[in-house]
Amino acid sequence: MKRVLKPQHLWLSALFFLLSFNFASSVAQVKGDSAMVRRIYDEALVNGESYENLRSLCKDIGHRLSGSPQADQAVEWGRQLLENSGFDTVYLQPIDVPVWVRGDIEKAEILSSDHIDLQILALGGSVATNGILEATVIEVQSIEQLDTLGEAQLKGKIVFFNRPMEPRYISTFQAYGSCVDQRFAGAFSAARYGAVGVLVRSMTLLEHDDHPHTGSMGYKDGVEKIPGAALSTASANELHHQLAHNPVVRVRMQMNCQTLEEKPSYNVIGEIRGHIEPDKIIAVGGHLDSWDVGEGAHDDGAGIVHSIEALRILKDLGYKPRYTLRVVLFMNEENGNNGGRSYARHARSINEFHVAALESDRGGFSPRGFSLAGDECVGVLCQMIEPTLAPYGLHMFDEGYPGVDIRPLMDTENLVNPNMILMGLIPDSQRYFDYHHSETDVFESVNKRELELGCAALASMIYLIDTYYDEIN
Amino acid sequence: MKRVLKPQHLWLSALFFLLSFNFASSVAQVKGDSAMVRRIYDEALVNGESYENLRSLCKDIGHRLSGSPQADQAVEWGRQLLENSGFDTVYLQPIDVPVWVRGDIEKAEILSSDHIDLQILALGGSVATNGILEATVIEVQSIEQLDTLGEAQLKGKIVFFNRPMEPRYISTFQAYGSCVDQRFAGAFSAARYGAVGVLVRSMTLLEHDDHPHTGSMGYKDGVEKIPGAALSTASANELHHQLAHNPVVRVRMQMNCQTLEEKPSYNVIGEIRGHIEPDKIIAVGGHLDSWDVGEGAHDDGAGIVHSIEALRILKDLGYKPRYTLRVVLFMNEENGNNGGRSYARHARSINEFHVAALESDRGGFSPRGFSLAGDECVGVLCQMIEPTLAPYGLHMFDEGYPGVDIRPLMDTENLVNPNMILMGLIPDSQRYFDYHHSETDVFESVNKRELELGCAALASMIYLIDTYYDEIN
Repeated sequence: MKRVLKPQHLWLSALFFLLSFNFASSVAQVKGDSAMVRRIYDEALVNGESYENLRSLCKDIGHRLSGSPQADQAVEWGRQLLENSGFDTVYLQPIDVPVWVRGDIEKAEILSSDHIDLQILALGGSVATNGILEATVIEVQSIEQLDTLGEAQLKGKIVFFNRPMEPRYISTFQAYGSCVDQRFAGAFSAARYGAVGVLVRSMTLLEHDDHPHTGSMGYKDGVEKIPGAALSTASANELHHQLAHNPVVRVRMQMNCQTLEEKPSYNVIGEIRGHIEPDKIIAVGGHLDSWDVGEGAHDDGAGIVHSIEALRILKDLGYKPRYTLRVVLFMNEENGNNGGRSYARHARSINEFHVAALESDRGGFSPRGFSLAGDECVGVLCQMIEPTLAPYGLHMFDEGYPGVDIRPLMDTENLVNPNMILMGLIPDSQRYFDYHHSETDVFESVNKRELELGCAALASMIYLIDTYYDEIN
Repeated sequence: MKRVLKPQHLWLSALFFLLSFNFASSVAQVKGDSAMVRRIYDEALVNGESYENLRSLCKDIGHRLSGSPQADQAVEWGRQLLENSGFDTVYLQPIDVPVWVRGDIEKAEILSSDHIDLQILALGGSVATNGILEATVIEVQSIEQLDTLGEAQLKGKIVFFNRPMEPRYISTFQAYGSCVDQRFAGAFSAARYGAVGVLVRSMTLLEHDDHPHTGSMGYKDGVEKIPGAALSTASANELHHQLAHNPVVRVRMQMNCQTLEEKPSYNVIGEIRGHIEPDKIIAVGGHLDSWDVGEGAHDDGAGIVHSIEALRILKDLGYKPRYTLRVVLFMNEENGNNGGRSYARHARSINEFHVAALESDRGGFSPRGFSLAGDECVGVLCQMIEPTLAPYGLHMFDEGYPGVDIRPLMDTENLVNPNMILMGLIPDSQRYFDYHHSETDVFESVNKRELELGCAALASMIYLIDTYYDEIN
């Protein structure tokens, strides 16, 4: 992956100045495109349908973990919405998904004269406690620390991972990335030393929040599966406080979650047929599944309605795309990524040529730019179009992770078009982890205008890629 | 005011490339400043005090219209906070403020068999209805439309201004600016044709909101003063609906608000003495007063704690400023701007040299950049420092309105330093008018990290101005 350049100092400015002569004609055209981008934003802000679509997904269906009845409803919801929105082709792409169910027992308390309740949510994929699990708690700050403590300190214990997300990162996704190993790898790492369960401080920057934030955890072959739960930060603070004042703190926890048989599900796909090269694809998507608490509004209802609305806008403006525009409502991003991986494998199996793939899976907040991956032409394109998009508050065009669902398209075994463009929408990240994977990720936490601006940003980028990809390649 | 340039197309890029040689040494230094800016952000995000300060202002005092007991409390709150924060000098600058009180009667209803209540808030400065005001309603979309309707249609009527804020603007402040004439000038414009009252659709982009949004209105000498009230957008929609279905709609309204005698109040000022040129000033401020509903959290509690925290950060990092850094908590921005105007007049009277003045009065949202005014050196400076600030999400450095409270410093009769820099912090504007001047502008509507990033943005800009102003002048 090549470095995407930004004119962040003078010598780069000079380089861009020289480079830019190559694109002089393009630039003139891009400036002319301002009118189309303006029409896209007008449509999103005046006649936008994304907010009511999100309301429907959140309130008519609610949360929708893969394999749940609600996930099945969401597939049907997506299919019907795409058909009603007048896409040329709408179809379901079959995949298999894991099925994990939370169960009806989920509780924990500190054993003391006060009986202090702890707010927990089982981590996705966790095994049950098989009745009551009662053990002494040991607090750690990292997985590495387990190696120091060893079996002597960890055997028979519940390990409490309490390293908070680092507030100094400006992007909260970096803060998440630097912390989430505790949630994903905490259980199998602690089980190696004989621990019997893990409690993990919620992945949120809220310092005192009563809502636990769940998310996926993993197990390793050959290592005993021990139960894992997320602890609200308020409960994590309380447990930390107890441990600071008492030599021995015991916790009792009980969860009856379980993993069932895999079952069939679907990616939901809709297309607007290209007028010049219909066999080449620009795909845009988000994920239809969500964790089984809240309503999956920001994660990733926003990305779903963003993607549908982006193509709806272009269609309703009468835009005739060069390439086929495809929306993909991926299933199973949260606990397996079977949708994204199946999609890429299938595309490879039929040698399908992706011009570009775009993803929205960072919430419905005010958009700031795009995270870029793929061929270096993505950087060239963004240099060309930045002046067109800057008036809309889109300034960030940096190399980065494009998104979980589209990334498999880049895997060597799946790659068909070496000049493929991958982009992830970057909304403002500050509030994302206030809601992420918790009861509070509901429709009311999404602002209508912020959501609509995301739709317009995606639609504009798709329009610009459709217009200029051929020219820069 | 000269045009502040941005490299938005190739020829400007070339120009900046050539220009930039003049600042080669500066650029090297600015890059070295990244470490200081990083320290500023770390302090704001890890040890920040702004959020708890805002909680105190909102919850211990609440709303604080000029002349109210709460405004007096806010002056004392500000003075104590500045003293406790270790500023070198803290003092009160006396001003006079208008006093308007809402009274205890404020209601309106549509007279029909259903008796439909309308949600209203008297506009700030409005006269009372003097008992019950009952009249037929006529709906208009603009002040210009009044001239067409004339006395024949308007005499004896309540005029209902119902033009909504235009959603197509990306900056909601532009949408506000294009609409607020109805609120400010609606009453005296309608009174000229014999209207007896005005109801104005609330200035918000929420299309169906139960909360009226108040704000200031004006009267003209020689034109009868008629009462004016803001109508929630939900009530405006209802009234519009009634008017569409009934030939005659009558409204009964009653308000006993009144204007009292002016009284003394204060701007609250704190200073950190400059080490090289202490007689030159970099000022930063927001306004301490607020409308008399909600808690004035975004407007402008955020600007108050932003400004205090920006200087607190620099002080606690041990920074020794070249110029004197001054925080000004302006009084009476909302209904008179006596604080801002007195401040500028006083500065002129003692020939005080302002290097720069910065203002935060656009809410506590995620910062995007600065609105620039004053000498062209402000543009040169921002070109120099943009690469230092871009990693913190600050990309917008455009010519624009710097803020109500600092703008009088630019008035010809007040101007001491023709090379003065004026800047207004630009947070993301999408949610601002959801809360503005309504019951919902409360502490809970402010996100801690978004607030803290604003403090750091201001502190960084003050640091960079303090460091480079001398060099670019």
